[in-house]
Amino acid sequence: MSTARSFDPRTGTSVPAPAESTAAEVDAAVDGAPDLSGISPETRAGWLEAIADALSGEVDRLAALADEEVALGLPRLTGEAGRAAGALRFYAEVTRDGSWLDATIDRGQPELRRVRVPLGPVAVFGASNFPFGFGVLGHDTATALAAGCPVVIKAHPAHPRLSAALAALARDALAAAGAPSGALTLVHGYAAGGRLVSHPGIAAVAFTGSQRGGLALWRQAAERDRVIPVFAEMGTVNTAVVTPAGAASRAGRIATGFAGSFTLGMGQFCTKPGLLLVPAGTGLPDRVAEALTAAPPRGWLLTEQIAAAYETGVRELRDAGARVLARTPAETTGWGAEPAVLSVTAEQLRTGPALLAECFGPVALVAEYRDAAELHAVLATLPGSLATAVQSGGPDDPDLGPLVTALARHCGRVIVDGWPTGVAVGWGQQHGGPWPATTSPAHTSVGAAAVQRFLRPVAYQDVPASALPTALRDDNPWGVPQRVVAR
Amino acid sequence: MSTARSFDPRTGTSVPAPAESTAAEVDAAVDGAPDLSGISPETRAGWLEAIADALSGEVDRLAALADEEVALGLPRLTGEAGRAAGALRFYAEVTRDGSWLDATIDRGQPELRRVRVPLGPVAVFGASNFPFGFGVLGHDTATALAAGCPVVIKAHPAHPRLSAALAALARDALAAAGAPSGALTLVHGYAAGGRLVSHPGIAAVAFTGSQRGGLALWRQAAERDRVIPVFAEMGTVNTAVVTPAGAASRAGRIATGFAGSFTLGMGQFCTKPGLLLVPAGTGLPDRVAEALTAAPPRGWLLTEQIAAAYETGVRELRDAGARVLARTPAETTGWGAEPAVLSVTAEQLRTGPALLAECFGPVALVAEYRDAAELHAVLATLPGSLATAVQSGGPDDPDLGPLVTALARHCGRVIVDGWPTGVAVGWGQQHGGPWPATTSPAHTSVGAAAVQRFLRPVAYQDVPASALPTALRDDNPWGVPQRVVAR
Repeated sequence: MSTARSFDPRTGTSVPAPAESTAAEVDAAVDGAPDLSGISPETRAGWLEAIADALSGEVDRLAALADEEVALGLPRLTGEAGRAAGALRFYAEVTRDGSWLDATIDRGQPELRRVRVPLGPVAVFGASNFPFGFGVLGHDTATALAAGCPVVIKAHPAHPRLSAALAALARDALAAAGAPSGALTLVHGYAAGGRLVSHPGIAAVAFTGSQRGGLALWRQAAERDRVIPVFAEMGTVNTAVVTPAGAASRAGRIATGFAGSFTLGMGQFCTKPGLLLVPAGTGLPDRVAEALTAAPPRGWLLTEQIAAAYETGVRELRDAGARVLARTPAETTGWGAEPAVLSVTAEQLRTGPALLAECFGPVALVAEYRDAAELHAVLATLPGSLATAVQSGGPDDPDLGPLVTALARHCGRVIVDGWPTGVAVGWGQQHGGPWPATTSPAHTSVGAAAVQRFLRPVAYQDVPASALPTALRDDNPWGVPQRVVAR
Repeated sequence: MSTARSFDPRTGTSVPAPAESTAAEVDAAVDGAPDLSGISPETRAGWLEAIADALSGEVDRLAALADEEVALGLPRLTGEAGRAAGALRFYAEVTRDGSWLDATIDRGQPELRRVRVPLGPVAVFGASNFPFGFGVLGHDTATALAAGCPVVIKAHPAHPRLSAALAALARDALAAAGAPSGALTLVHGYAAGGRLVSHPGIAAVAFTGSQRGGLALWRQAAERDRVIPVFAEMGTVNTAVVTPAGAASRAGRIATGFAGSFTLGMGQFCTKPGLLLVPAGTGLPDRVAEALTAAPPRGWLLTEQIAAAYETGVRELRDAGARVLARTPAETTGWGAEPAVLSVTAEQLRTGPALLAECFGPVALVAEYRDAAELHAVLATLPGSLATAVQSGGPDDPDLGPLVTALARHCGRVIVDGWPTGVAVGWGQQHGGPWPATTSPAHTSVGAAAVQRFLRPVAYQDVPASALPTALRDDNPWGVPQRVVAR
């Protein structure tokens, strides 16, 4: 007798969604999660590839289903689904590489061998805004499986039917690839999510979404008898800085690029540049306003709650002293929203923390700075963020070095002459930054190192070969990298 | 007008100790901590060696001073001071090695370069029981400096005069080696410690000690505007298991070894084996009692508080149903304590969490198990701990493999045919385990990987060479390991 619904953001109408999971179903998912720690990296890499192949074969059907629930448009969703399959294949490559095990053989007296072991069942809370990239088959699920951890995924209420379809596809692919049943399960509903985080069998939580949601899970996990790590990657205000040389050489392209970046996907990116700092007297605030008005972005927000929070957020920015520079019309049906760009002063930024709270959706602030001293004073007050950017006058721009250094203090990724919205998947990526961008600043939720979240090291002292984990054996049957230290 | 005192555990008498730091002194220490992130690993390795040399040159004087405050005896303290100097030299080797930077150059489109950067000033709270190994110049201080983080150390009230002497020695050595002033400072007093953890300039906390102390700092840090990581390594009940073959082949040596290990340093080791699980019918509980009585350990506890908590803890174990097997006399002056071994049943362990709370001091439990099923049922209920041990019948013991696997689920280090009390310093060490052994199970406070606690990764996207951190430059002037990924 479920009342769960799946909503169409374009109209606000709904159809039935999968029923909320019962407490017994949540417990069964956790208690039935198999121990994957003894399964070879090669085998688990094959599982990820099997899921990737299944996803690749169904991109059109799944993108269409996603579009009914999130209204981000077929081109974006088809591309995202394809990139999600690519990410699964990349994590298969990472799994095979084996350097994440950090296997170390220290032939001292005593002999110490150290390897990273999987934490155990991981609860995954995906995001609304990337139904593929940060959804049921997104980075958290892929890297947990890569680490050897089974996953219990909480479906996001913004796309429950897609979540169910993705989980079914993955379950079938895993079964066909020979994975034990229960390695990937899905639960639905708010209560199910709460039960998951408190379940004694859950060993870690991965979350992508809002500050409010992430911190609530982090607090809940801290109340457990056995506290477990919560890797929450949360929306922040990401700052972009234009140098005087940058403004002089390509103000027009910067204005257009910024307007395009902060309204991409209707501003529903955790890497949205929410604040642009520009040299005073360059006219850049007006040019950004013109760029927005010249190509008004159209679209819908993901949920009714997000649409309401956006309205509130824009009002709060104005209440905190931000002035509207430009605003373009909203879609008139469903959960439309008016894109907007607002201006603030450097002084306001330094004194008003309300201006540095994330407003999820197509809004951004522009502030002028007088000189490098005022700019760096503003930068020193920035809270942690996922990414920052510099728009420079080129490699010889004298402001570039000090700015990259200053920005790196507050974020996980610094971009030069680009925008933070795109997040490439590779060995060099870092998606996570100082508090409050993530609850654990040393971790990333995208890229090869994301696997590390779901591992912990164990040392084996004078343990005979017969009782050692496979990755630490001298005959190295998995062929993983081993650091051998002679004494 | 300080009333701070330094106590002699042998007599309970006291002499004046350094005054408690004022709030202004704490703020000056944090605000004056220099940015070390641009200083080469080679240079910082030299700083650690300079401290090691200074410590080596003063071992006798400092061990004598330590003995006045902690009464652990000159042989132990001289050895510990020497090993602390050795650890500093090992961390210099780790610093030079540079693999901890995890420098990665991913030549994709966009180009992403990723490196670990120091978090910033670290607050170090050392332990009472290892005034050298986990004191002012212990693992936390050494690895923070290795990572490029300045340290502000809170002196432990059990050894304030030694703490001051060690800090002065290190300050002089650092100055002579050309380190910027303020890279290592010391504060005294409970209020100073509290102010340190809440200071906006502190980027991480390292703590070694009791559950109560560690969790209090962890909670305090979680209340900050910008929450920071707390790496608390806390005392736990470490379990040792004797297999039937082990009991059959060398029961006498096991009994003697266990009694020696749990009373070493008057039981004041975080790696003390607090629980011995033995096969029923082997007489091992009585043999442990005989071993304790045959060579009664003599000594003092570190502080009046620890002595009082020990008495309370032993009483609580008895109240929870443990039965005294043997007890030996306490020193009659100062903070003496009666060593004791108690017996419990496997059933009591599975149902009474009070029996699995750490009691710091020379006490341990022995429990008999009927068969492998009962043993593994007990092991499944164990809380996280730093280390566990198996006393086996040799490499062919059929119980060994399953036991190592089961024990590894709950701890950071598994030892075969040894005791957990010794903690070697090297590339393969892991000193830290699942909650509540540490607040962050993926980290270690001893060994090469301990450096990782004080770093976080930053990705640099399309950043020109002139603005890159040194470790990520193609010309690699520091000569650090770089993972280069071609696309």
